[in-house]
Amino acid sequence: MNIPQSSFPRIVIIGGGFAGIALAKKLSKKEVQVVLIDKHNYHAFQPLLYQVSTGGLEPDSIAYPIRKILKDFPNFFFRLAKVEEIRTEEQLVLTNIGNIAYDYLVMATGAETNYYGNTEIETNSMAMKSIPQSLNLRSLILENFEQALLTDQYHERDALMNFVIVGVGPTGVELAGALAEIKKGILPKDYPDLDTRRVQINLIQSGDRILKEMSVQASEKAEGFLEGLGVQIWKNMRVTEYDGKTVTTDIGERFETATLVWAAGVKGVGIKGLDAKELLAGGNRLIVNHYNQVIGYNNIFAVGDVACMQTKEAPNGHPMMAQPAMQQGKQLGENLVALVEDRPLKPFRYKDKGSMATVGRNKAVVDLGNFKFQGVFAWFVWMFVHLFFLIGFRNRMVVFVNWVYNYVRFDREARLIIRPFNKDYKMFKD
Amino acid sequence: MNIPQSSFPRIVIIGGGFAGIALAKKLSKKEVQVVLIDKHNYHAFQPLLYQVSTGGLEPDSIAYPIRKILKDFPNFFFRLAKVEEIRTEEQLVLTNIGNIAYDYLVMATGAETNYYGNTEIETNSMAMKSIPQSLNLRSLILENFEQALLTDQYHERDALMNFVIVGVGPTGVELAGALAEIKKGILPKDYPDLDTRRVQINLIQSGDRILKEMSVQASEKAEGFLEGLGVQIWKNMRVTEYDGKTVTTDIGERFETATLVWAAGVKGVGIKGLDAKELLAGGNRLIVNHYNQVIGYNNIFAVGDVACMQTKEAPNGHPMMAQPAMQQGKQLGENLVALVEDRPLKPFRYKDKGSMATVGRNKAVVDLGNFKFQGVFAWFVWMFVHLFFLIGFRNRMVVFVNWVYNYVRFDREARLIIRPFNKDYKMFKD
Repeated sequence: MNIPQSSFPRIVIIGGGFAGIALAKKLSKKEVQVVLIDKHNYHAFQPLLYQVSTGGLEPDSIAYPIRKILKDFPNFFFRLAKVEEIRTEEQLVLTNIGNIAYDYLVMATGAETNYYGNTEIETNSMAMKSIPQSLNLRSLILENFEQALLTDQYHERDALMNFVIVGVGPTGVELAGALAEIKKGILPKDYPDLDTRRVQINLIQSGDRILKEMSVQASEKAEGFLEGLGVQIWKNMRVTEYDGKTVTTDIGERFETATLVWAAGVKGVGIKGLDAKELLAGGNRLIVNHYNQVIGYNNIFAVGDVACMQTKEAPNGHPMMAQPAMQQGKQLGENLVALVEDRPLKPFRYKDKGSMATVGRNKAVVDLGNFKFQGVFAWFVWMFVHLFFLIGFRNRMVVFVNWVYNYVRFDREARLIIRPFNKDYKMFKD
Repeated sequence: MNIPQSSFPRIVIIGGGFAGIALAKKLSKKEVQVVLIDKHNYHAFQPLLYQVSTGGLEPDSIAYPIRKILKDFPNFFFRLAKVEEIRTEEQLVLTNIGNIAYDYLVMATGAETNYYGNTEIETNSMAMKSIPQSLNLRSLILENFEQALLTDQYHERDALMNFVIVGVGPTGVELAGALAEIKKGILPKDYPDLDTRRVQINLIQSGDRILKEMSVQASEKAEGFLEGLGVQIWKNMRVTEYDGKTVTTDIGERFETATLVWAAGVKGVGIKGLDAKELLAGGNRLIVNHYNQVIGYNNIFAVGDVACMQTKEAPNGHPMMAQPAMQQGKQLGENLVALVEDRPLKPFRYKDKGSMATVGRNKAVVDLGNFKFQGVFAWFVWMFVHLFFLIGFRNRMVVFVNWVYNYVRFDREARLIIRPFNKDYKMFKD
């Protein structure tokens, strides 16, 4: 890996998401050597991925070069690499570009889509947890309409224009809302030779309310918004099979569709050598104590989605979202410095800053403690908060320009198939 | 292809570049049916591709959905397809999504990189004629630096940090200048653990001056700008071989490099059935008369880069650039309407609106007839003209925001490896 030896203790952080970056910032200019490893050279702002998939934002505006975040930090080393194994006995991280020894190791690997062992669904469905995945979905959605033009078979055309989304967390809800707006505002103009009234958006859940991490009031209002936009919501229904054509459910309902988006769950990203079963809580998360220390290890920590800190308020760990990740990263940064300086550590305390989701134009739901509101004002709050948390002035400006444009013009101009998804389209390689 | 029959004559346009779009616009609301075919669903603004490759702009800001351009035109049909063959006898276009008959056919297929038959160079070098190609180059440049960090071998590291560009038209010159600015402004901060003074930018040409389509004054000034930025210019030298590691030239000079960018020539994009040898002028272009009619056919036309109209002023055809393409497209649009309405056609007359190229910050060269200027003012003119010709208000705003940001901050934030280029990096698939 070519990292120089240092007299300072070495902290290896795996992952440059919300938790890893918040942690790294706290370690700048401290007496430690930091090696941050990520498989991408950028930090991705995951809450806006659904806007990339639906042509509302360009991918580059929600990504930020990790090297730029770290550029003024002395003793910092970034490596673009894929971690393959951790040897806890030897204090060694094995990657595709070589091995690196650590004094302290921080798992900030985040979460990935959870298919609950259903490999058929994993193979045939689309996910939206990374920028490349979101771009694949963008391409597929647009390709579907191009293909729908070419067939005279109602059955086939309807399947191409039927979008089935499983999962009613913010991702599923926001994607469904965005697709509904595309159906209404863009498709009739872009595809005058297609009867876009036949486009269907089906949102499926196993429970009985959407956004179930939020208040009942927010759920009900969001449901009303979605229904107003023409999204069909299915409750108490589990998707059991999808062969690429037909979605089968546990109550016998079936859907013919070319596009199943699986947003029904996430799980922590484990790494060989550290995902021994005793460490895993529900969702493949590493169980940590109140200092984010992985149980059973003195010098291994976990933060963010991959960490499961069981507290009285959160017996199954904190929600797998940006806020707990950022707060844990920050706190662990302070604790690691304390550890190196031989000062006492502070236990983590989650400050719930509220949660929010947007369904569409002027339609969002916000829960801030007891203060709950929905509609236009909530939508502006949602936009402001997301702009605020985006890293980088340029990204904020570009996102802002896009949002103003999209709002004023009822448009989404990034409906581009830069790299096709459909593998049958072999000629679209360049 | 599922295009309805119409009582109007059907014009099939192949290609949605500058020529094809300018032509299509002239045909709106006329008594013709128009079918526009492109292998991408967007129009790409090629003059700014080098800024995508060098992280200055996001790809989506220089692409525009073709369907949106055509959205208010009645009797217009867009099809995302790859044309495979033209059967001129049967008046039929064969594509991967089916066949379509035409009354009039317009070749607006543009140009592609010309390797002059050297398949070794074609295989191992990078081109920059499309958005996906430009993104591949962006990824490769960034990956080279990530790899350079990992080796202790000077030889290998230098090869990774050596960029060899062949061709001194605007593409080669602008890319060389942008790389030089990255070397100076970004690499030392992004890669503090790499000696970026060793980065080399070599610009190779077979002739003896750069930008040879422009005035001698522009060439000399641009050369001075490049040298000031640290670009090494090589004259009267031909690259003969490149095996992926070593560039060999006809005068014995060799370069060890992981990146050869081939911008040494373009040729028209031919299609089977219409590229019979007698039709081809130098550079695989279809010879057309003054009405852009392909010689030997009554109902086949060619516009833009693929057309070679031999005139007294331009015995080898007009320059393969945006301006002639747009002007020819416009004129042919008017002529096709005249043809359908049985009015006389007007011969094409090229209005040379001047040419320009940019080397870097505050450094551009502009020739407007006898009015030639270089430097800061030229640079602002260059930016204004490029913003003006970009399609779409959103694209203009996003590009403008990026340029202001890059100018004020000496930065280029789109240095993102969204999809890796290096095929060895198999783990970077998502």
